[in-house]
Amino acid sequence: MRENDDGRSGFDVSVLGLGAMGTIMVRALLKQGKRVAIWNRSPGKAEGLVAAGAHLCESAAIALAASPVAILVLLDDTAVQEMLGADGVGQALANCTIVNFSTGSKEDSLALQALVNRAGGHYVKGMIVAYPRNVGHPESYCIYTSEREAFERHRELLEVLAGHAVFLPWDEALAFGTMLHAYSFAAMVAFYEAVGASRHFGMSAPKMARLLSDASRFLISDALEDAVRRLEEGDFAGDQATLDVHASAFEYIAESMHACGARTPVFDAVCQVVQRAQSMGYGDQDVSATTQFFAAEVPDCADSPAPPEFDTSQCSGAAVGSATP
Amino acid sequence: MRENDDGRSGFDVSVLGLGAMGTIMVRALLKQGKRVAIWNRSPGKAEGLVAAGAHLCESAAIALAASPVAILVLLDDTAVQEMLGADGVGQALANCTIVNFSTGSKEDSLALQALVNRAGGHYVKGMIVAYPRNVGHPESYCIYTSEREAFERHRELLEVLAGHAVFLPWDEALAFGTMLHAYSFAAMVAFYEAVGASRHFGMSAPKMARLLSDASRFLISDALEDAVRRLEEGDFAGDQATLDVHASAFEYIAESMHACGARTPVFDAVCQVVQRAQSMGYGDQDVSATTQFFAAEVPDCADSPAPPEFDTSQCSGAAVGSATP
Repeated sequence: MRENDDGRSGFDVSVLGLGAMGTIMVRALLKQGKRVAIWNRSPGKAEGLVAAGAHLCESAAIALAASPVAILVLLDDTAVQEMLGADGVGQALANCTIVNFSTGSKEDSLALQALVNRAGGHYVKGMIVAYPRNVGHPESYCIYTSEREAFERHRELLEVLAGHAVFLPWDEALAFGTMLHAYSFAAMVAFYEAVGASRHFGMSAPKMARLLSDASRFLISDALEDAVRRLEEGDFAGDQATLDVHASAFEYIAESMHACGARTPVFDAVCQVVQRAQSMGYGDQDVSATTQFFAAEVPDCADSPAPPEFDTSQCSGAAVGSATP
Repeated sequence: MRENDDGRSGFDVSVLGLGAMGTIMVRALLKQGKRVAIWNRSPGKAEGLVAAGAHLCESAAIALAASPVAILVLLDDTAVQEMLGADGVGQALANCTIVNFSTGSKEDSLALQALVNRAGGHYVKGMIVAYPRNVGHPESYCIYTSEREAFERHRELLEVLAGHAVFLPWDEALAFGTMLHAYSFAAMVAFYEAVGASRHFGMSAPKMARLLSDASRFLISDALEDAVRRLEEGDFAGDQATLDVHASAFEYIAESMHACGARTPVFDAVCQVVQRAQSMGYGDQDVSATTQFFAAEVPDCADSPAPPEFDTSQCSGAAVGSATP
């Protein structure tokens, strides 16, 4: 086994934890010609990956020593803590960058970072925002935080896992992960709601799904681009269609869906939001002015608490893919 | 003025009604080199268009006689009825295809179709699914119904207004228009909700909007494609992430947003839907199985009424652009 410049043995990357997500990450890395060292607590999981060209290490310490960067996809940060705290592992961490995708809170992660730093290594926290099927896709996203320099040093390799690698400060990374999940799944469930409602209109669900998926893509992405511009410029002029116009159209759409016997709790909530925004005086503005409604303090909780400590499991593996081995 | 083969004078298309939407349609047609005859009740609105190359007609009858196809973008179908019923208009309708984008119910439209057919003309009902800024865009959609043959004869011209021209039977066109609006605006408002909530996490709204818009595009379009496939194949296997996994992640995300003082009525509705779907036994399936929840009969209203007669204003101009002159 030859050594790299930094004295670490000749692999490009090590992956520790071979659950669904770890396994698919290894396959994505092998596909791009990377030399991958792997380790898992139960070695049986590695067989297929070894056949595909990965090198199975006998211990976590050996796997950590094998590459300049080690990707951790264990069950949770408690498992990471156990693994990194084990005898003989400490010295394997020197000059190694740990990229930890395992589930855990910000505190857990900060404690792990301290442990890794004390051993002379670097620490990057990663959050996957992709279903397993899209790991390795150039259009997928991963969010990274903790040590920016260490991240940048390995950016090219990490972009194999997801073409878009976004580094943000801790609190922004957590907020982004949370909002990306909240928005994306709200959109998805709204889609299921509309498709399910089509049955009440006597239309085939797959046909409606096909039409909706195709026709909504540009409509929504354009509206979101327009909203970004409006937020950047503070311009909510109702030059395309006012909130009032939308509100009355929404009311009519909701009525027609209800009259057919469709359940539309998500769209009903949308209608209520728009009505509230109207009552706050945004009626003659663009519908994106509802952002102001959401940004306003809730009167009952004006002295709202600080942002909670966030369990990153919820904005990384848990919702759109599991890091669980 | 030279005449076409069918004896109609030498324009490609006439546009009657020069409100915001009519005006922008004329400009899109002129931009593609079409010879456009125009008419409006108050001729002042036509000046800019005449300067841009449109030909202003002195009466609706002259405008209708000027081209093989006439696009109507009047205030509503009552205004269309008045215009088409006026003296001298009847004979202008012979061999003319009316494409009516004005606001009105299915009944209104069927009555107009009968009137046009009696005069030897053809009738197509159109619904615009684009903000004014996107009329003429190759990625925009218009939905058409009524006479398929007449639509196909003028498809190429109509694709100038919106690159995707989808013809469907009446009830499917109305259902599609309704669902496309319900879904798209629910997604947009969910986006505003997430962006607004970012303020409660101490993050700049424009920065969050930029990140969310970019990172959600592929995530959602891929999820929708996957849902289409699952619906077509009846395959809701929880092989990527189960509904149960999503439900617990959603609960956590909602709690963290609430703890920061964010209002999230849309995401709250999403959480409730997922919980209901769990209680219906879809927990180990893909999250798209919630479509089944929405497709199920609401027990209280098992003998639900027939679909309501739908005012197409609500699924055409009203929400994403105004046909109002």
